[in-house]
Amino acid sequence: MRIGVDVMGGDFAPDAIIEGAVDSLQFFSANEKLVLIGDETSIYRRLKMMKVNPEIFDIVPSTEVIEMADHPAKAFSQKKNSSIAVGYGMLKNGTLDGFCSAGNTGAMLVGASYSVNVIPGVFRPALVTIAPRIDNRDSVILDVGLNPDCKPEVLLQYGILGSIFAKYVLDIENPAVGLLNIGKEETKGTPSVKAAYELMREHPGLNFTGNVEGHGLFLRSMPDVIVCDGFVGNIVLKMAEVFHHISRLRNFKDAFFDRFDFENIGGTPIVGINANVVIGHGISKRKAIMNMINQTRAVVHGNLAQRIKEAI
Amino acid sequence: MRIGVDVMGGDFAPDAIIEGAVDSLQFFSANEKLVLIGDETSIYRRLKMMKVNPEIFDIVPSTEVIEMADHPAKAFSQKKNSSIAVGYGMLKNGTLDGFCSAGNTGAMLVGASYSVNVIPGVFRPALVTIAPRIDNRDSVILDVGLNPDCKPEVLLQYGILGSIFAKYVLDIENPAVGLLNIGKEETKGTPSVKAAYELMREHPGLNFTGNVEGHGLFLRSMPDVIVCDGFVGNIVLKMAEVFHHISRLRNFKDAFFDRFDFENIGGTPIVGINANVVIGHGISKRKAIMNMINQTRAVVHGNLAQRIKEAI
Repeated sequence: MRIGVDVMGGDFAPDAIIEGAVDSLQFFSANEKLVLIGDETSIYRRLKMMKVNPEIFDIVPSTEVIEMADHPAKAFSQKKNSSIAVGYGMLKNGTLDGFCSAGNTGAMLVGASYSVNVIPGVFRPALVTIAPRIDNRDSVILDVGLNPDCKPEVLLQYGILGSIFAKYVLDIENPAVGLLNIGKEETKGTPSVKAAYELMREHPGLNFTGNVEGHGLFLRSMPDVIVCDGFVGNIVLKMAEVFHHISRLRNFKDAFFDRFDFENIGGTPIVGINANVVIGHGISKRKAIMNMINQTRAVVHGNLAQRIKEAI
Repeated sequence: MRIGVDVMGGDFAPDAIIEGAVDSLQFFSANEKLVLIGDETSIYRRLKMMKVNPEIFDIVPSTEVIEMADHPAKAFSQKKNSSIAVGYGMLKNGTLDGFCSAGNTGAMLVGASYSVNVIPGVFRPALVTIAPRIDNRDSVILDVGLNPDCKPEVLLQYGILGSIFAKYVLDIENPAVGLLNIGKEETKGTPSVKAAYELMREHPGLNFTGNVEGHGLFLRSMPDVIVCDGFVGNIVLKMAEVFHHISRLRNFKDAFFDRFDFENIGGTPIVGINANVVIGHGISKRKAIMNMINQTRAVVHGNLAQRIKEAI
């Protein structure tokens, strides 16, 4: 099993990426390899400073960098020797089982849709976040930012994609699926959400448990999968971030609130494409990178892309 | 100045309403009167038990009750002697300057739109919530639940209505207005939100400061007015509630987090109708009722409905 990490992507690249990569190795088993993709000189220099033997990694050189400010589609097609383009190329030719980057998000999404491609039958890929629950279990929320406007059949399919994620990545049997809405009643919400409710209720393969309101998130009663459009999901994701931030501003250090810290979550997997890909936060430092790599390992262990291909 | 409160509305009516009404009187000045609308026998009995002189109130009897489970429109038109219908009747004939209830929300909204009516020129009334900021100032968010789907011109007008609220109820000069979105860039969001961005930027009377992301809420940098559709606003409102709830579950007692407690916020004013009306949470107890009445006083002091009539 080979996991690739983009050493050049993120505000603190390459050093923080290399450090996080070294830290993540403690979780790797003998048949797993971490592949560092980036500028060889920087990688060897940093590893030497850290007194880490470079041979514990596979090192794949890249000579270009897609900067944070680059135009995603243009940069991806023009910088063929960038770490992101090299990573996607390795996913495509099967020399990587998973790939992650804290670099240019747009370029990562371009690679997802136009390099490894969307799985046939998937309407729209989605970004998934792991959401902590007060009973110490995890739920997933999708979409958290790819598709601000979702048709009902897209929301239904997010329920299916989210269920596959919950089952194979989080090991939850028959995951319960809820629809984020502004009331419990099936008559609530936008026309699109109301129509999605009907589709989800009628779908035989889905363990649909109905609408979930904003004050039902993160509690014991939260379903394993929360479906919403990418606009609402993105607001929810970032609002959880700000509450974690405020809890620290108020000098509250708490194990549960800390689970909302992106540094502990690590990254946002993309579901619905022909590869296992995780996108990290641009401001990721050493710890966040370690967890982004761990998140990628979990997605690869769950064989997520293959499971979705079989199911859709 | 006369504030009416529905004594029969809410899960803990009438006792909790009467108790909250008594508590709220400490804030009333000599020229202000609190009007209790409800079952006379219950009111006199409870006040006697509390050893409170009934003459400090105006008591207006009603003989019917719109129950929480009643169909809003049907109940409002059929139960003409219900406390909610009586309250709206008094708003209409000018014997009340403001009215609040923790009862059937649907019936309160029916009264708003079909009894006192929407202000001509207002596309859609909205529900406003006060949002605390870490720097101890207040912002407002609208809409938090009335209109799940909003056209761009409705969002623009929410900016205007919210500015009037911030100026006259919260005493904020030239309030800054932000649009809740999934990125800072003007190209982000749904087609409707993108079009609203253009309208808001071009509107001469609006102090528009651009997009605000979910992690910009509640911080010092949060604008005074946050505009969003009622779907997203409702999720934000209830998610703040659940974070307050979780903070208490985690044994964190904090003055700032407590400002997210609905008991301290008290109620949700309706903007855009020909009267000053505040809707309370159905589960309101004594303290929440006191704050709902306080909220109504603030709206009446700001002369909100009249200010909007003059501006639109």
